[in-house]
Amino acid sequence: MMSASRYAYLGPEGTFTEAALRSMPEAATRELAPMVSVAAALDAVRSGAAAAALVPIENSVEGGVTATLDELATGEPLMIYREVLLPISFALLVRPGTALADIKTVTGHPVSQPQVRNWLAANLPDAVWESAASNGDGARLVQEGRYDAAFAGEFAASRYGLEPLVTDIHDAQNAMTRFVLAGRPARPAAWTGADKTSLVLWLGDDHPGALLELLQEFSARGVNLVRIESRPTGEGIGRYCFSVDCEGHITDRRVGSALMGLKRICPKVRFLGSYPRAGMSPEDMAPLRHGTSDEAFAEAAEWLARCQDGRA
Amino acid sequence: MMSASRYAYLGPEGTFTEAALRSMPEAATRELAPMVSVAAALDAVRSGAAAAALVPIENSVEGGVTATLDELATGEPLMIYREVLLPISFALLVRPGTALADIKTVTGHPVSQPQVRNWLAANLPDAVWESAASNGDGARLVQEGRYDAAFAGEFAASRYGLEPLVTDIHDAQNAMTRFVLAGRPARPAAWTGADKTSLVLWLGDDHPGALLELLQEFSARGVNLVRIESRPTGEGIGRYCFSVDCEGHITDRRVGSALMGLKRICPKVRFLGSYPRAGMSPEDMAPLRHGTSDEAFAEAAEWLARCQDGRA
Amino acid sequence: MMSASRYAYLGPEGTFTEAALRSMPEAATRELAPMVSVAAALDAVRSGAAAAALVPIENSVEGGVTATLDELATGEPLMIYREVLLPISFALLVRPGTALADIKTVTGHPVSQPQVRNWLAANLPDAVWESAASNGDGARLVQEGRYDAAFAGEFAASRYGLEPLVTDIHDAQNAMTRFVLAGRPARPAAWTGADKTSLVLWLGDDHPGALLELLQEFSARGVNLVRIESRPTGEGIGRYCFSVDCEGHITDRRVGSALMGLKRICPKVRFLGSYPRAGMSPEDMAPLRHGTSDEAFAEAAEWLARCQDGRA
Amino acid sequence: MMSASRYAYLGPEGTFTEAALRSMPEAATRELAPMVSVAAALDAVRSGAAAAALVPIENSVEGGVTATLDELATGEPLMIYREVLLPISFALLVRPGTALADIKTVTGHPVSQPQVRNWLAANLPDAVWESAASNGDGARLVQEGRYDAAFAGEFAASRYGLEPLVTDIHDAQNAMTRFVLAGRPARPAAWTGADKTSLVLWLGDDHPGALLELLQEFSARGVNLVRIESRPTGEGIGRYCFSVDCEGHITDRRVGSALMGLKRICPKVRFLGSYPRAGMSPEDMAPLRHGTSDEAFAEAAEWLARCQDGRA
Repeated sequence: MMSASRYAYLGPEGTFTEAALRSMPEAATRELAPMVSVAAALDAVRSGAAAAALVPIENSVEGGVTATLDELATGEPLMIYREVLLPISFALLVRPGTALADIKTVTGHPVSQPQVRNWLAANLPDAVWESAASNGDGARLVQEGRYDAAFAGEFAASRYGLEPLVTDIHDAQNAMTRFVLAGRPARPAAWTGADKTSLVLWLGDDHPGALLELLQEFSARGVNLVRIESRPTGEGIGRYCFSVDCEGHITDRRVGSALMGLKRICPKVRFLGSYPRAGMSPEDMAPLRHGTSDEAFAEAAEWLARCQDGRA
Repeated sequence: MMSASRYAYLGPEGTFTEAALRSMPEAATRELAPMVSVAAALDAVRSGAAAAALVPIENSVEGGVTATLDELATGEPLMIYREVLLPISFALLVRPGTALADIKTVTGHPVSQPQVRNWLAANLPDAVWESAASNGDGARLVQEGRYDAAFAGEFAASRYGLEPLVTDIHDAQNAMTRFVLAGRPARPAAWTGADKTSLVLWLGDDHPGALLELLQEFSARGVNLVRIESRPTGEGIGRYCFSVDCEGHITDRRVGSALMGLKRICPKVRFLGSYPRAGMSPEDMAPLRHGTSDEAFAEAAEWLARCQDGRA
Repeated sequence: MMSASRYAYLGPEGTFTEAALRSMPEAATRELAPMVSVAAALDAVRSGAAAAALVPIENSVEGGVTATLDELATGEPLMIYREVLLPISFALLVRPGTALADIKTVTGHPVSQPQVRNWLAANLPDAVWESAASNGDGARLVQEGRYDAAFAGEFAASRYGLEPLVTDIHDAQNAMTRFVLAGRPARPAAWTGADKTSLVLWLGDDHPGALLELLQEFSARGVNLVRIESRPTGEGIGRYCFSVDCEGHITDRRVGSALMGLKRICPKVRFLGSYPRAGMSPEDMAPLRHGTSDEAFAEAAEWLARCQDGRA
Repeated sequence: MMSASRYAYLGPEGTFTEAALRSMPEAATRELAPMVSVAAALDAVRSGAAAAALVPIENSVEGGVTATLDELATGEPLMIYREVLLPISFALLVRPGTALADIKTVTGHPVSQPQVRNWLAANLPDAVWESAASNGDGARLVQEGRYDAAFAGEFAASRYGLEPLVTDIHDAQNAMTRFVLAGRPARPAAWTGADKTSLVLWLGDDHPGALLELLQEFSARGVNLVRIESRPTGEGIGRYCFSVDCEGHITDRRVGSALMGLKRICPKVRFLGSYPRAGMSPEDMAPLRHGTSDEAFAEAAEWLARCQDGRA
């Protein structure tokens, strides 16, 4: 089995995840394998059946994709190699010949429903919604005649012999989904100057200031957080770990220093990778806070050495 | 319509939410109205069709129930009157006569699936899982013959003419779901000494220390956080609000002082209520930090007045 | 005894303190009583022998005047009514007829010596310095013939029958001394919009973060510190209290809130008064940080009341 | 000139500084050179005329010795090699034959006066105090007949042909003076496990949180402060630097890390040395905070390297 040539993804075919995967140039030369769940896609990587897997991790309307967050936080370690941002806009897919007035039942992924709720209330107030396992699966169920219409990406229409009756449906402006390409632990992607680092952090004990201390490890080095999400550890109500993205690359000394600080105070830290920020270039980044550049760290280390040698 | 006598809940009948509701003494004298979604249950309250609604808000395995968090954070204000904790344990419900070996398909709420995954892998490795809209709905679909078995609370069996083939199934020990009874804004429940206060906090701007400042408003008054969850505001990737539970009651001066501090620095704060902590009595609470008792606040205010009057 | 008409000051006559006192319009109608020490001047106020006393508190070259800091921090409480800033520039006073070449011995207050050290080294390298109890006293000793020259304010010359041989002597540019007019506890001076508040704060215990917590009470309300000085409590090496000036008036709600916070966490706080900042007008003040205006505090208090009443 | 064999000290002979110096074993083999001022003693080191100088730096009653703090903070760098603690207790020295009733005038160093003030008020209420340049100088002036009595260390009596009329005089219990032996920059004293590190820190700008940030660099690494004193920079009222002692040795990784953090955020840091804490042994030290041991730092650094290599 030539796993190095295969990329798994959250299937079935025709989902936004597939569309995101096909937006990556390297996907053109890969075998793309749809999997039934986030867990299955990531397990394919862990087992060696796939070189990497593309899974959704965050949606600007619905928030974190908990299956992905939890799968990355536990089990055999994986790393994020890169991220892809995809604007989310739905088409209402129907069997050829169906008119809006014919639609009594609609389906789609549960996460899609809140993103089309207003549109549904305005345009199909009497239609009954039932959730499908995925948007692609919803399209298949329309093809099979089980529902009258499905919300999915427009790109899914041809695959299932459907046609887009309405396109560009989205309640929220600028809705985006963020996907990550996860693989086995490896040397992080090269530094670009517009990078992001992902971590999972466990709090040591229940003391009230624990989260505060953790955030201070970032702020003390001028490292900006771009995402923080609490997830239950499964050890009972009130026990959390934190899934965090911060600006910068692990080879940036301010980031490395913050990571070491976190490693010292947290009972467990999982490094999930450093990778280029999708849609950002170095000139988009906020200026570094005074004293947090690599040069500032290097100068401080040299000064310390001089002090220790009696030369300061 | 006598809405004051009606409590809505996340239906259908036979779900854990109904079981939680029936654990509340006052439910005995109410009409209990199952609703198709968290949104529908809370909208029944907003419209006056129900006096209150019980909805799940947090699960020790799956985390926050995002529909509930988001419904409480937006729209016409609601308040949490009280909370209920329910240990979660599943039964495998089947039509009478079904044996384990007969089961080819199983269903249940998507949130249930990760909580029985290990049990399934060990006991029904070849069974196909399909999600249902709720655990109660899953039971109904087994009754209708669409699936062979459903994971649900044991209490749901009789309602759907099923029998519990296996009981007490749960991958995680001590799995709990927390439910909240939400109603229209009202004077908070009386102080008990073992209270909790719920808030939604919006960050003012993107500056990196904003979350840190927000947490310091709590820690500066010795107010412990028991839950913090980020939720997207819908304004794009990277824009969050925070759903927070802290120890104490709004009439505790340390909590009131923290709330005022948050109100000053956050562009928007939503107070979701103060109510007794389920399963906790005053003697279970951590001792107050020095200087944060009501007496300490009162003495400080009196001292300030004396200083302003030239009597200190 | 008409103590209300008498102002004590750190004497003797001819010191910078007297010059500072005479710069205050109200001094014109008072009897001005020189005292032998800061302690004696403040004790005159405590005993009722004087309505107020002017004493130096800080020098831009030499730092805090410890006698004043310690006298205000201990004993029967006093309050600062106002402050006066005086630029410090010395004259070299001699008996008429003395030339620079004749000067073998010079005197002055010990605090003056570092402020003229460079000038001495350049112009009178061989002269012997001996300290006097005050600059005025030094001038007197020159008058009596004990020393050849004294550093003092030019204004002291005529009082002691001396003449200023050299004027405008000061090693540091912009050297200033700050004086405070202290009286018995009274309602603080009226708010001006360019005010300062003085405090003495004792740390509760030895825990390493105690000073940090204390500073956070200021920073959490956007209250800027303009001076902080540690002073030994006399209970042994390593035991300190902190003498602090912050921007703002006790009737500014952000300042009052910070004071109450400090009162709660410190075992002892002494309020030393709110008074206009010398040389500053409201337009010189830094803009308030967002959320720290009186309006923001009032709105937060009203919002809290609405929440407690179920009207938020 | 054999400067390596000479130790300068704040003279004249017969002061507490000489007593402190003679308490050091290595002083027995040195030439001890009394100097007229702290500046002169330290300049002897800078010029090479002395190998080191012992000067007082802190008094538990009077606070920091500003001349020493300022001399160490500016000019050509010096380092503290070690510290000496001396309990302070005064004797009243008189010419043989003098009785208490004969004493009309007393002298002593200005710093001594507040330490014997109560004793004077109770025992010699009518005696006139005049300051001397040092306690030793006061004794000399009694010998010369200028004053009737001098407060000084009992050890000074024989040197000046005086006798101790009263001994063990001290208003405060446990009064101590701390002296430091300062020399030219050199490799710090060996680590002992009960060490102290001295620094001078300049704040970068006037922003209100600057001191807070500086303190956080210590607290984030669990490094306890044992002394902090503000000193004017001479650039005008309100411009300070901070003279700081913290627990630990520069070769402790938590201290080195804090120093590097300070170096990055402060425009100027002066390292004044790491040396054994007088009167403390390793077992007297507070336990390290979790995550701040050398092992914790080493593990964090190794973990970071593994993450960067893709082996975490």
